Amino acid sequence: MEPRAATTARVRVAVLGATGYTGVELLRLLAAHPAVELAFLSSEQYRGRAASEVYPFLAGIVDASLEAPDPDAVAAAADVVFTALPHGAAAPAVVALVRRGRRVLDLSADFRLHDAAVYARWYGEHAAPELLSEAVYGLPELHRDEIRRARIVACPGCYPTGALLGIVPLARAGLVREPVVVDAKSGTTGAGRGAKVEQLFAEVNENFRPYAIGAHRHQPEIEQEARAAGAAGGVLFVPHLLPVSRGILSTIYVRMLGGRPPFEALFEEAYRDEPFVMLRGEGPPPELREVRGTNRCVIGWRWDEASCHAVVVTAIDNLGKGAAGQAVQCFNLMLGLAETTGLDAPALVP
Amino acid sequence: MEPRAATTARVRVAVLGATGYTGVELLRLLAAHPAVELAFLSSEQYRGRAASEVYPFLAGIVDASLEAPDPDAVAAAADVVFTALPHGAAAPAVVALVRRGRRVLDLSADFRLHDAAVYARWYGEHAAPELLSEAVYGLPELHRDEIRRARIVACPGCYPTGALLGIVPLARAGLVREPVVVDAKSGTTGAGRGAKVEQLFAEVNENFRPYAIGAHRHQPEIEQEARAAGAAGGVLFVPHLLPVSRGILSTIYVRMLGGRPPFEALFEEAYRDEPFVMLRGEGPPPELREVRGTNRCVIGWRWDEASCHAVVVTAIDNLGKGAAGQAVQCFNLMLGLAETTGLDAPALVP
Amino acid sequence: MEPRAATTARVRVAVLGATGYTGVELLRLLAAHPAVELAFLSSEQYRGRAASEVYPFLAGIVDASLEAPDPDAVAAAADVVFTALPHGAAAPAVVALVRRGRRVLDLSADFRLHDAAVYARWYGEHAAPELLSEAVYGLPELHRDEIRRARIVACPGCYPTGALLGIVPLARAGLVREPVVVDAKSGTTGAGRGAKVEQLFAEVNENFRPYAIGAHRHQPEIEQEARAAGAAGGVLFVPHLLPVSRGILSTIYVRMLGGRPPFEALFEEAYRDEPFVMLRGEGPPPELREVRGTNRCVIGWRWDEASCHAVVVTAIDNLGKGAAGQAVQCFNLMLGLAETTGLDAPALVP
Amino acid sequence: MEPRAATTARVRVAVLGATGYTGVELLRLLAAHPAVELAFLSSEQYRGRAASEVYPFLAGIVDASLEAPDPDAVAAAADVVFTALPHGAAAPAVVALVRRGRRVLDLSADFRLHDAAVYARWYGEHAAPELLSEAVYGLPELHRDEIRRARIVACPGCYPTGALLGIVPLARAGLVREPVVVDAKSGTTGAGRGAKVEQLFAEVNENFRPYAIGAHRHQPEIEQEARAAGAAGGVLFVPHLLPVSRGILSTIYVRMLGGRPPFEALFEEAYRDEPFVMLRGEGPPPELREVRGTNRCVIGWRWDEASCHAVVVTAIDNLGKGAAGQAVQCFNLMLGLAETTGLDAPALVP
Repeated sequence: MEPRAATTARVRVAVLGATGYTGVELLRLLAAHPAVELAFLSSEQYRGRAASEVYPFLAGIVDASLEAPDPDAVAAAADVVFTALPHGAAAPAVVALVRRGRRVLDLSADFRLHDAAVYARWYGEHAAPELLSEAVYGLPELHRDEIRRARIVACPGCYPTGALLGIVPLARAGLVREPVVVDAKSGTTGAGRGAKVEQLFAEVNENFRPYAIGAHRHQPEIEQEARAAGAAGGVLFVPHLLPVSRGILSTIYVRMLGGRPPFEALFEEAYRDEPFVMLRGEGPPPELREVRGTNRCVIGWRWDEASCHAVVVTAIDNLGKGAAGQAVQCFNLMLGLAETTGLDAPALVP
Repeated sequence: MEPRAATTARVRVAVLGATGYTGVELLRLLAAHPAVELAFLSSEQYRGRAASEVYPFLAGIVDASLEAPDPDAVAAAADVVFTALPHGAAAPAVVALVRRGRRVLDLSADFRLHDAAVYARWYGEHAAPELLSEAVYGLPELHRDEIRRARIVACPGCYPTGALLGIVPLARAGLVREPVVVDAKSGTTGAGRGAKVEQLFAEVNENFRPYAIGAHRHQPEIEQEARAAGAAGGVLFVPHLLPVSRGILSTIYVRMLGGRPPFEALFEEAYRDEPFVMLRGEGPPPELREVRGTNRCVIGWRWDEASCHAVVVTAIDNLGKGAAGQAVQCFNLMLGLAETTGLDAPALVP
Repeated sequence: MEPRAATTARVRVAVLGATGYTGVELLRLLAAHPAVELAFLSSEQYRGRAASEVYPFLAGIVDASLEAPDPDAVAAAADVVFTALPHGAAAPAVVALVRRGRRVLDLSADFRLHDAAVYARWYGEHAAPELLSEAVYGLPELHRDEIRRARIVACPGCYPTGALLGIVPLARAGLVREPVVVDAKSGTTGAGRGAKVEQLFAEVNENFRPYAIGAHRHQPEIEQEARAAGAAGGVLFVPHLLPVSRGILSTIYVRMLGGRPPFEALFEEAYRDEPFVMLRGEGPPPELREVRGTNRCVIGWRWDEASCHAVVVTAIDNLGKGAAGQAVQCFNLMLGLAETTGLDAPALVP
Repeated sequence: MEPRAATTARVRVAVLGATGYTGVELLRLLAAHPAVELAFLSSEQYRGRAASEVYPFLAGIVDASLEAPDPDAVAAAADVVFTALPHGAAAPAVVALVRRGRRVLDLSADFRLHDAAVYARWYGEHAAPELLSEAVYGLPELHRDEIRRARIVACPGCYPTGALLGIVPLARAGLVREPVVVDAKSGTTGAGRGAKVEQLFAEVNENFRPYAIGAHRHQPEIEQEARAAGAAGGVLFVPHLLPVSRGILSTIYVRMLGGRPPFEALFEEAYRDEPFVMLRGEGPPPELREVRGTNRCVIGWRWDEASCHAVVVTAIDNLGKGAAGQAVQCFNLMLGLAETTGLDAPALVP
């Protein structure tokens, strides 16, 4: 890591669920973050072992032990907590930490939906519905100011991040009146590190398939934010599983009867000052590798006159801008740090 | 290969362009075809070498020499010719062979479009426009009878095959009135075996990207056949490059304002007797690996009530049903053989 | 499948453990085998479901139900049984079937080692040590005649097949006096289809590693057969995990102080009439893809004068010649069929 | 990039051959290096275009133009030059720059071999044999002090780096008396970014093969340094091509008749203070992914008593410690900077 000025005050940070794919990406980013002290790590599965024993690449970088996520111990050790726990398990942990005065960045689905009834339909009964209205949806490009002040940041799902950054500038302009089709393709880390036959190498390799067509849990989350931005016609979301480790590419189709929209003006206005949104416009389409390991979102577009469709393409790293990177971006905002702190490593290409 | 009855009459077959990916797939299939004698192979690049020297897996299977594609020599050696040449190069070869009384299955784009002006716009001036009206579009599920009698079969492009098999049953019923969106994802062999930087392993691996959005040469071909089947609103075709060797998965979106179409009845009617079309319906969506190495097309569907969209998913092997397999299927029809002859090997899974 | 002569008598065959990677490869091969009737399939995990429900690529090819492996039911249904069960579970099943007069091809490790004490050291107590001396090691290139008459064929491990075919011709000539180093690299299907974190796509993809260095369970099996052939110095076996689905490439190092051995003569003599051994000699080295989906073993060699080492390279498909393909080859021998029956499909390239 | 103290003096640096895989890795590392100003970039192929046009991931990171490598222009713009040119092309460029008083880190093979006759045998006539004796072999673990003072650093080949770091500690102790076998497996970027059929995705994917057995150009380089360290028996080097983008894993076999060597003591002594060498010992063997994107070399070992072999395994990123990372490490030494400057990013896992 870069030599750090002796005067930098460090924030004591906890990561709960540190050995899943999202958790370890948090470790990778936070270990190199100049304003962070990694003060507490938890893992149910690997409790008692060193992080670098579970992930040897962390040797000399994060050698701390993985502990049980006791709320008192966490609150005593850390000022800010990243929770990378399964949905359902996250809510009680967040409640316990907020009660103990800690600020929390939750990477699960538990605080993303504002409506407890919608949450219940997709995930089951919510453990703390009274906190849903307080939680801020952690997409800085949409909610930067609320994030700065938030006690609970609900970090967006990976698919919603890629979809929304492509839809919102058009929706805000009132141009999205028909249903939006989001054809999304994700690497396998989006499915987590659980031992499932369908995620084995020999099942995914040389294969490709859609799943949960129109029925994925990220659909209501996309719709909530897209509608709030003005997309009147709803969203049809179709995810696919790519044989790559990282990345989501979303190809977004919006029928527009009024002719070509002013893409350039709308996306420029929306993202002019955004450090992590790269506008490719009508240049070479975004591709996964250019965002690998980064917090960037690259956005390109085309207008198809014959079919009256806008095609918007976005590329993110599902573990970066789609999860841990975006959480760190929110953390920087909450702490009043430069928004890019710890997030400026170039993509790993090739 | 299976022991063959001594009485089987063999058809003498030539393959021109035998060392590209489509060509070698033809060799793989035709070598195991009980009614075929591989009588002539050509390759510009490897002229004078044995096919099994270029592709060692063919040792003991196709050891014949690769020759120059002199039309007289080809016509003398073979009764039926498969041309797997680049577009532009195929047309003159086809003309020369037809003049010499041979039947030709052309796997290039040269005879797929009926309209020479449309061809010219996408590929350049056509060398034999007078033959365009005679050539039969080699999709047996649409044109079986004409294929049986054809002198020139224009084998469909890989993308059009996957797209059309999903669109046509709905289009024929008059249900496709709005533009169809075809979001297609292809393995790299679809791009051929030319030495291009963008096709290097380190460029494609762990990557994914769209290309030629709304501007791919297969778009007019899809539109020609889709419109002929009744799709009134045109097609928006968006291809993507997958990091797999083989396979095309097409996710097809059709807005239908009249509510859920009778998928089952329409697809059953269209494909009831088709040996290579597998209807998955609303079961587990089609996936690439289940068609790898086969001539199958697997088709699934969903209705999304909220957005009034039919979602149809098709999976083919771009070298199988998308190229060489389909050409052999047409060959079987032309020769009056059982349509599945030489095409019944199960997929290679895992 | 090829049209079958109406007169072919079919052998009723059972496959126990039909949904693991080895089991499904047996289904793929046996379904296309002209002398086989697939009469009984078992699967603990998927009992009661159709094989084609678990593996959709089998639709229309193997639609039979998966049942519990009750020995009486198996013996009633089938004349010959392939057992693709985990080691330890196989032995009792084999005993039960042999007692009921059935011939068994066992693809587990349970009958490969002749010495019960060696078995116990690597796998635990053996359930039927009295049968070890009867079982025939199913490598036709070494034990063809015994296989023909065998009641129990112990199909070799995948690694031993690739290693032994490279070592034996030199060992028989008395040239292997120093320890042999076998540096082997295998695709992931060799590890089976169990749901293990270390076999997840995101753990294997873009990765490569050795494991069980000098301590793999296949080492005693390699040594048993190599020593029997005359390799006096033992074997150091080091396996590695490749990010591919299928295939084992073994690079074999043998120090020879007497100078370059007569590779050509020795390998020709050993394999002259072998239908599945392809001698590449000093040509382009064997590669995995040329054996993918086949029962072939390709063997190349080099002599390095400076270091006095013979380098022998072998390539097999771990599910083909390394497991199911070889089992079918043994089956053909046991039944007096042509040895290549059902095994002549070309490799899937590209 | 980390905010940099205003007072840091920047060294003006040129990269010649900036768009090959090694070149772009230099850009990725140097752009984030706090003591570097990227002052001049050259590319024959993409002259006149921006680096970020050729590699979009560099947008906002390296947007400078690619120029022709005119020695006067280079020398005027930069104090230190990295040459990532093909062998043969590098030597004249290095000569020209040294004459103009610049210090050069050459990543080609041109200055690695001390003996012009050996160079000639493997690469052809050398353009500047008089400089061979001056050039320092840029492996800091072997030649740190000479690198500090060097005018020309010959950065080691990727394979030699992985091999030598595993061999040298044993060789120095006089334990390497028999020929060493280095069985090495490399990702495809080691072969460069030239458009070659054999490097196409569909040729490498799902494939694996050895090449240049005992005849690779890196063999004399390994031997030169291994012999200098005391390895008396020479080296048999066998490279293989892995279907991964980055990384080299070397499995090294050394026969030792005196019994188990004191691995721990020897490797500790050799690498105790090395910031980039991680000793894994007899723990889980090194794997490629833990070094991906880093300058690390992870080393593990085993003793096999039965065969009297030491097995040493090393893992590096061929573009990191095997090329650009190591060059930056040497640069840091030459400039008197902390050796890890700009090289401390964790590996990209998963």
